[in-house]
Amino acid sequence: MNIRFYNGKICTMENGTAFVDELWTNGGKIAYVGASKEADIIFDREIDLDGNLLIPGFKNAHTHSGMTFLRSFADDLPLLDWLHHQVFPMEAKLTPEDVYWLSRLAIMEYLSSGMTCNMDMYMADEMARASIDSGFRTVTVNGLNNFGGSVEETEAEYDRLNAMHERIGACLGFHAEYTCSPELLKEIGELVNRRRLPIFTHSSESLREVNECLERTGMTPTAWIDSFGIFNYGGGAYHCVHMTDDDLSIMKKRNMAIVSCPGSNTKLASGIARIIDMLSMGIDVGIGTDGPASNNCLDMFREMFLMTGLQKLRLDNAAALPAEDVLKMACVTGARIMRLTECDSLAAGKNADLTVIDMHRPNMQPVNHEIKNLVYSGSKENVKLTMINGEILYENGEFFVGEKPEYIYQKANEIIDRMR
Amino acid sequence: MNIRFYNGKICTMENGTAFVDELWTNGGKIAYVGASKEADIIFDREIDLDGNLLIPGFKNAHTHSGMTFLRSFADDLPLLDWLHHQVFPMEAKLTPEDVYWLSRLAIMEYLSSGMTCNMDMYMADEMARASIDSGFRTVTVNGLNNFGGSVEETEAEYDRLNAMHERIGACLGFHAEYTCSPELLKEIGELVNRRRLPIFTHSSESLREVNECLERTGMTPTAWIDSFGIFNYGGGAYHCVHMTDDDLSIMKKRNMAIVSCPGSNTKLASGIARIIDMLSMGIDVGIGTDGPASNNCLDMFREMFLMTGLQKLRLDNAAALPAEDVLKMACVTGARIMRLTECDSLAAGKNADLTVIDMHRPNMQPVNHEIKNLVYSGSKENVKLTMINGEILYENGEFFVGEKPEYIYQKANEIIDRMR
Repeated sequence: MNIRFYNGKICTMENGTAFVDELWTNGGKIAYVGASKEADIIFDREIDLDGNLLIPGFKNAHTHSGMTFLRSFADDLPLLDWLHHQVFPMEAKLTPEDVYWLSRLAIMEYLSSGMTCNMDMYMADEMARASIDSGFRTVTVNGLNNFGGSVEETEAEYDRLNAMHERIGACLGFHAEYTCSPELLKEIGELVNRRRLPIFTHSSESLREVNECLERTGMTPTAWIDSFGIFNYGGGAYHCVHMTDDDLSIMKKRNMAIVSCPGSNTKLASGIARIIDMLSMGIDVGIGTDGPASNNCLDMFREMFLMTGLQKLRLDNAAALPAEDVLKMACVTGARIMRLTECDSLAAGKNADLTVIDMHRPNMQPVNHEIKNLVYSGSKENVKLTMINGEILYENGEFFVGEKPEYIYQKANEIIDRMR
Repeated sequence: MNIRFYNGKICTMENGTAFVDELWTNGGKIAYVGASKEADIIFDREIDLDGNLLIPGFKNAHTHSGMTFLRSFADDLPLLDWLHHQVFPMEAKLTPEDVYWLSRLAIMEYLSSGMTCNMDMYMADEMARASIDSGFRTVTVNGLNNFGGSVEETEAEYDRLNAMHERIGACLGFHAEYTCSPELLKEIGELVNRRRLPIFTHSSESLREVNECLERTGMTPTAWIDSFGIFNYGGGAYHCVHMTDDDLSIMKKRNMAIVSCPGSNTKLASGIARIIDMLSMGIDVGIGTDGPASNNCLDMFREMFLMTGLQKLRLDNAAALPAEDVLKMACVTGARIMRLTECDSLAAGKNADLTVIDMHRPNMQPVNHEIKNLVYSGSKENVKLTMINGEILYENGEFFVGEKPEYIYQKANEIIDRMR
C-alpha cells in the first residue's frame, strides 16, 4: 500500500516539534515527508488529515503483554507480595497458547493508544507469534531467572528471535537481581562479554528490593549487577525508582538506558524516579507501561502525564519536564533504547510507524499548542489511526489485526475462567 | 423519551457495587432499576447494553469551565505566578459571550468523559446559559473577591440562578482568602449566617498560600476563614492540599466537604492531599477536574486514577484507597456535595443522569473485576453514552448538544486568535 497523508500537522520529531504538511508511504517505508508537492508515486489511498496531528508512533519500552489475564485480578498490594503471592502462582497455570492470545489482546490496547512497538519480557516466542500475526512490531527480552530458563536458552532465543521476522527483534535480558543467584549472574556476565551485547533487566523498582540487595550483597542492585560485568555493553534497566548518585554514574558510564514506568510505580506505591537527574546526566530515558497486572492499563497518554506530573510533584516545581521533552521520550528515545532507530522519527527511508491524533475532539480544543494539548490533555479517544510498517492496524476505533476483537476477548475470558 | 436499558451490568451505587440487569427511564426520571421484567410503560427506544457497564454519571465537583481558552496557554508555572501573571491578565480580555462558548466546549468534554454535572466557579450566568442550551446540569458557585463582585451581587446571583431552570442550581461562594480582604470576609460571614447557607471556596491549595496566610493573619486559611463564621452552615472547600490536623477538625466540625483535584495539584506541583485522613475522619471528599487552564484536561478517568495512585505513593501503601471507594467519591459523594441528591445513585424516582461504559474494548478485557477495570484502566474511549435528565447528550462519540461541535471549536479558536 502506498498512502498519502495530506493537509495535516505532521510532527516528524527530526528537529524538535515543528510541523510539515504531507507524508507519503511506499510499502513499509516512508517515501516523503515535507511540504505539499506533486507525487511521483501512485497512491492506493489519500487521507485528508483535516488539520489532525501525525506523529511517530509511541514506543512502549517496557511491558509484559502476556499478563493481561491479571488485569484487576489482585490490585492494591505492594510489589513483592503481589509478585510472589499473586502473580507467580497464577502464571504457573499459563500455557504458551494462553500467552499468545493474551498478547494479542495487549497488542490491541497498544494500537488503541497509538503505540507502534513494544519491548516485551514474557514468553518471547508466543509474544513474537502474536505480534507477527497482528502486524505489530516487537522486541523481546528474556526474563531468565532461577526458576526458569538458562543462559544457553537465553542465547538461543536471542539468535532465533532476531532471525524470525522483519518486525521482530530480540535483546538479551534477565528478570532481576533478586530472582537470579550469584552463579547465574556470573553466567549472564560471561554471555554478555562473549557476545558483546546490550542487556536489559528490572532494577531498583522498590525500596525493599534495594534494601534486601544491600543486606545480602553490601551493594545496590545497580552496583551488584555491574560487578558481574553485565552492563559492559550497555542496554537498559526497567524502573530504576530508587537510585543513588553512584548508581546513576554507573548507568551513565556503562551507556545504560533507563525505562521508567510511572503508572506502575504509582499503583504499586514503588515511588517516583529521579527522571530529571537522569536526563541532566545524559542518560537515555524511555517510557514503559509495565504489564497490565500492575498498571493496569496500557496507555501512553497516562504514562506521559504521570511522567511530567510526578516530576513536578517530586521537585515541587511546575516547570519540571516540559511536554516536548516527554513526547521525545515516548517517540524517539524509546526507539533508540529498543534498537529501532529506523522507527524513531518520520523521515524518508525510515519505517512507516506512525499515529494520527484526532484534534477534532473537545479535549484538543482550542489549539493554543498542539504538543501540550497532546501530552497534557490527550487520551485514547484521540487516537484516530495507528500504522505499523506501512499497514493501518487501527482506524476510527476499528482493529485490523487479522482476528475479530470479540474472539480475542472471548479467548482471554476463557483463560481467566479456567484459572478460577 | 422513555428508554429501556437491558442486558447490562448496572451498578446502581445504592448498595456498594453490586449489579442489576435493567434500567428504565420515564422522561427525566428513572422509572425502574432491577431484574428484567415485563414493562408497564411504552418505550421510545430499547438499548441492548450487551454486557456493558451502566453507572450513575460522574460528578465534576470543582471546575472553571470558561477557562478552556487557557488550555496549553501557559503550562509549567507555579500556582500563584500562573494565576497573577498569566490567568488574570488574559481573563480581563474575556467577554460574557466568550465565556458562554468556552463553557459549551467544556461541557462537550465533560460529556465525553461521562460526567453529568459540574460545580462551576466562573461567570455564573454564562455558564448556566451554556448548560441550559447544551442540556447539561450545573451548580454555579460565585467567585467573589476584592477585584470583582460584591456580597449583594453574590446573594442576588444565588437567588437568580436557583430560580432559573430545573437543571441549574447555585451555591454561595467566594474565590479564596488570599483574594478577599478581612472586610469582605466579614461581609461574607454575615451573608452566610443571615441566610444560613452552605458556602464554597478555594482553600489551602499551595504551601505558599498557607504560609502567606499564616504570616498575614497568624492562622491557616481554614482557621482564618472559619473565624469569620463563614463555615457555620457547611459547604465545601476546593483543593485542601496542605491541611493541619486542626484544619481537618474544623472541616469535620463545620460539616464542610472537601473537593480534591489531583490532576491540577499534580500539574501545578501543589502537592498531594491527605485524602485517607479526611475520609477516616468522616469528611465527605468529592473529585474535581479544576479548570482546563491548570489540568489541562477535563477527564474523570485521569482524576480517579490519580486520586488513588497519589495516595498509594504518599502513604507508601499500594492498598490505599481501593477502586470502589474512588468510584463512590466520583459518582455519589460529588452529588451530595453539590446538593444534587436526586442524581447520586440509580433508583426509581431519581434523575436519569447516567453513563454507559463500553466493556468491548481491549483496556476493559478480560473481566476479572468490572469496577477495578473502570477505575484503574478506564479512559474516555470507554464512554459509550452519557445521559442527563433522561436525554442522551453523547453517544458513540457523537454530541447531541444543540450545536455542531465544529462550530463550538471555531468559536473557541476565534477567541484565542483575538487575544493573541
